Amino acid sequence: MRSFTFLLVAFATMASLVTLIAPAPGRADGQSAPFVTEIPHGYRDWQWISSAHEAGNLNSLGAVLGNDVAINAFRAGKLPFPDGSIIAALHYRNVPSDENNKVFGQAQSFVPGAPTNIQFMVKDSTKYAATGGWGFAHFADGKPGDAAFMKSCFPCHEKTKATDLVFTHYAP
Amino acid sequence: MRSFTFLLVAFATMASLVTLIAPAPGRADGQSAPFVTEIPHGYRDWQWISSAHEAGNLNSLGAVLGNDVAINAFRAGKLPFPDGSIIAALHYRNVPSDENNKVFGQAQSFVPGAPTNIQFMVKDSTKYAATGGWGFAHFADGKPGDAAFMKSCFPCHEKTKATDLVFTHYAP
Repeated sequence: MRSFTFLLVAFATMASLVTLIAPAPGRADGQSAPFVTEIPHGYRDWQWISSAHEAGNLNSLGAVLGNDVAINAFRAGKLPFPDGSIIAALHYRNVPSDENNKVFGQAQSFVPGAPTNIQFMVKDSTKYAATGGWGFAHFADGKPGDAAFMKSCFPCHEKTKATDLVFTHYAP
Repeated sequence: MRSFTFLLVAFATMASLVTLIAPAPGRADGQSAPFVTEIPHGYRDWQWISSAHEAGNLNSLGAVLGNDVAINAFRAGKLPFPDGSIIAALHYRNVPSDENNKVFGQAQSFVPGAPTNIQFMVKDSTKYAATGGWGFAHFADGKPGDAAFMKSCFPCHEKTKATDLVFTHYAP
């Protein structure tokens, strides 16, 4: 049970496209959009769930953090996650560390560089009933993803089954 | 000031060599060894400082966490770190995430796999006066590095100037 997987990596592929601020779009089927448009308070202080590295064009290095509700539920084995659980994914450029490489004697070490985006999953079984109880957020430079971005990304979450089942990776 | 660099990556290069339990060795110059042989309590709950990725043979993905003393001092800009500060580096194999790659449609996503080692830096300006106030620890499978390993690794820390100056990377 000591594992989680974080679906928000799917969001990151289009992070560089986010340039506009716009209200969250309605879904094509008329249901309210499962998009969170405010940054949850205090997320930088949350506990570490796991790290994440995306190679290729994305070239990202980041971390997944969880608020107390999420962490406590996970550790107690009390899934599905209760309402109030929030998972955050903090993404940065994957950049070489000159300091570390000097010690290693070769170029092999990477650390987080400039921030690219922050993403959240918020559990509210009533508000986000249509998407397994999870709402989604994406922020770049403190601004939420625009309508086109969020809409284009939402199928990713459906594809990965945005339910508690996706949390299959928790670093021990 | 929002940056840290974590010297303990230097430790990781020899992690696979740690197979024995032994008391920390004395230094060649007769000073007591700056090696910590007990795992600090509760480190998995500490706050996230940064992530770290080592490519090449090491092929590692991990996280750097700090206890409250370290985090509070850093955020308040009160360096050098006070006694009681502890920094932890949790290292894992860098393994592909099949789940994430399915979403991306290509092989690009990596997550922490099997744990390889946990390392600590403990600030005690009296006990570890000879090494800038920092003591060092390395654990694999819950066991501290053996004498040969710790001795071989110690020059890495001297090389990287094991003082507060090395903490130059803190992910915002």
